[in-house]
Amino acid sequence: MERSPLARPFPQLPAIAGATPRIARAGYKNWGRCDLTYVELDEGTAVAGVFTKNICCSSEVELGREQVKLGRARALIVNAGNSNAFTGYRGREAVEAIMVEVATHMGCEPSDVFVSSTGVIGVPLPTDKAREGLAKVFHAEPCSWEEAANTIGTTDTFAKGAHASAMVGDTRVEFSAIIKGSGMIAPDMATMLGYVFTDANVAPAFLQQCLSAINEETFSCITVDGDTSTSDTVLAFATGKAGNEEITGPDSPGADAFAAALADVCRQLSHLVVRDGEGAQKFIEIAVTGAKSDESARRVGLAIANSPLVKTAIAGEDANWGRVVMAVGKAGEPADRDRLSIGFGGVWTAKDGQPLADYDEAPVAEHLKGQDVRIDVDLGMGDGRATVWTCDLTHGYITINADYRT
Amino acid sequence: MERSPLARPFPQLPAIAGATPRIARAGYKNWGRCDLTYVELDEGTAVAGVFTKNICCSSEVELGREQVKLGRARALIVNAGNSNAFTGYRGREAVEAIMVEVATHMGCEPSDVFVSSTGVIGVPLPTDKAREGLAKVFHAEPCSWEEAANTIGTTDTFAKGAHASAMVGDTRVEFSAIIKGSGMIAPDMATMLGYVFTDANVAPAFLQQCLSAINEETFSCITVDGDTSTSDTVLAFATGKAGNEEITGPDSPGADAFAAALADVCRQLSHLVVRDGEGAQKFIEIAVTGAKSDESARRVGLAIANSPLVKTAIAGEDANWGRVVMAVGKAGEPADRDRLSIGFGGVWTAKDGQPLADYDEAPVAEHLKGQDVRIDVDLGMGDGRATVWTCDLTHGYITINADYRT
Repeated sequence: MERSPLARPFPQLPAIAGATPRIARAGYKNWGRCDLTYVELDEGTAVAGVFTKNICCSSEVELGREQVKLGRARALIVNAGNSNAFTGYRGREAVEAIMVEVATHMGCEPSDVFVSSTGVIGVPLPTDKAREGLAKVFHAEPCSWEEAANTIGTTDTFAKGAHASAMVGDTRVEFSAIIKGSGMIAPDMATMLGYVFTDANVAPAFLQQCLSAINEETFSCITVDGDTSTSDTVLAFATGKAGNEEITGPDSPGADAFAAALADVCRQLSHLVVRDGEGAQKFIEIAVTGAKSDESARRVGLAIANSPLVKTAIAGEDANWGRVVMAVGKAGEPADRDRLSIGFGGVWTAKDGQPLADYDEAPVAEHLKGQDVRIDVDLGMGDGRATVWTCDLTHGYITINADYRT
Repeated sequence: MERSPLARPFPQLPAIAGATPRIARAGYKNWGRCDLTYVELDEGTAVAGVFTKNICCSSEVELGREQVKLGRARALIVNAGNSNAFTGYRGREAVEAIMVEVATHMGCEPSDVFVSSTGVIGVPLPTDKAREGLAKVFHAEPCSWEEAANTIGTTDTFAKGAHASAMVGDTRVEFSAIIKGSGMIAPDMATMLGYVFTDANVAPAFLQQCLSAINEETFSCITVDGDTSTSDTVLAFATGKAGNEEITGPDSPGADAFAAALADVCRQLSHLVVRDGEGAQKFIEIAVTGAKSDESARRVGLAIANSPLVKTAIAGEDANWGRVVMAVGKAGEPADRDRLSIGFGGVWTAKDGQPLADYDEAPVAEHLKGQDVRIDVDLGMGDGRATVWTCDLTHGYITINADYRT
């Protein structure tokens, strides 16, 4: 698969004390590459997670949802090439076998072992291949975050990573994060597996509180095709090795800086997924203001972002505000045609429900030729606001998805 | 635009006593074809209508919603080439000017004149062109329903008509119906203008009751791209010229036969719109059973029908039940992964949440190569059922929509 034109270079990611990635080849598919990722986590690592809301979710997600409630993690396993979704009790047994195997190796509880799988649906994960892969990966040399990012990928066209740091009191804490995902991305976090590793010392409950809130403004505000995977997962692991005083709540010293840095990496990661949207040629930011509430603004934004007519218009570099109007109207949120204003690249093309005859078309046309497109929508109803991100809908999307399995 | 491979020949439609179509060229766009349709309706014609739920609807829709409450019609005007939507008070004035002009000609009330417009959004309908067009069309020779069907079309690749008849007591009543629409089709009736003409004698209230109920199982069960137009309208006109005893309610003689024939033409019309879906190569029927309720089944069906991943899989002739599972799961309706069964072309490929290893792949592959594809989904939760219709998502859709205005 050709590298996305919107790709970003993989950043310099620091090692995180207490989190050691390793990779191996389990051979889940008939390919030469590594497809099993193992991150060993030192004792005392806190964990938080957010998961797909798809009702037909995988066993990995069902188990993960329960495990994060315990708040502690010792290992992460990611299988690429087989999602193990829609595989009934055999799928669940395969995950549990991996958890036991890793727990035995680590000397921890099976519930400390987090497993994710991504790839084809409906084929139970082969436990023999998993076992052989684990035997290899336990003894593999530690690898870089970039190698891990490449190993968790499936249809991704580039490795995705993000970095942030924060001062917590006098202590500098680091965040290194990786993610995979390119299609089937929608709010409720589609085929997306994201992992944030930090050496910060933070209580699991506060880590979860931060991640859940940040999720609403990052992973839940991106969409590629409106479809929602059965396996989506974002986990944040905090090893505590930085040695800062434990952050236990919003009033702890450094809590704000910690949360801001976590939000920063999550925002970076979510944008990278859109930048690898299947067939994407343009990265689209949609800012909705003047809604009755923030949640209403987000729904309107997503209705626009998921509209095939809007997405194809942007692909065609057409400032087609009529399609934006249509998408606002179908969102079912409070709106008034005659108060609606729409702009492209910072230039209003329609105000108060009517097109502006005299707007300057040249900068708008120029803006739409670029790779980064901005759409502003003001509903004129209230103070609610939200920003969502998507990509355009192109021939590339059809080519990739009409010929996936064969 | 090339004729859709799923097109159907225009049927033989009988003249309807009391409903006389005429066409002319108003020149709403710079084209040589007729773009103004006028159907004169005799006194005593009953009318019913269903309209888009898009909040940003056109003035035509706003007015039409009020007019159908009065239940009587004397004329229908359809403008093609300019939708007059998102044009504020000037758009509304243009519609009211047409209503007055036609009412003066007919000697009726302006509220007896129904106006629809379809085409580009955001440009007020030019009243001078409308006036010139009306002057011509008032004196034009009556035309055939096929000519009228061609005149109301915009991006349509073939003229669409449907016929039915029913015995009401001893009286045979006829239905001749036309429709336009090809993209932006979704429940809540996207860019779709449909008109049913019958010579039956029926009370407006019962006509509306029938049409509203039928709409739920026909026009509200089709989708091309999930987008919803600002102008969608389906109107049914009953001239009463057949001379049957007036049908006033479900217990009137012939009421069942009348309703069944009306449902038949509406079903035909709705399927024709899907068959002209932008870029469509395959007509897809999705039958959902075992839902908690009929409404729940319809929502699940539409989630599948609107999934770009399902639609591209069918385009690729791939029995990708995994994507169907995903779409069921994201619908947010009651479902249980482990009770879900999925079939293609009458062959179950997954039962009770797991793929069937031994299903016969040959007939499924053969079925998917055809133009008409059937997907069965059983949720195993209850007795709710619904059938929805859509088309596949192909390169043709992208080509048409990424280069529409330019």
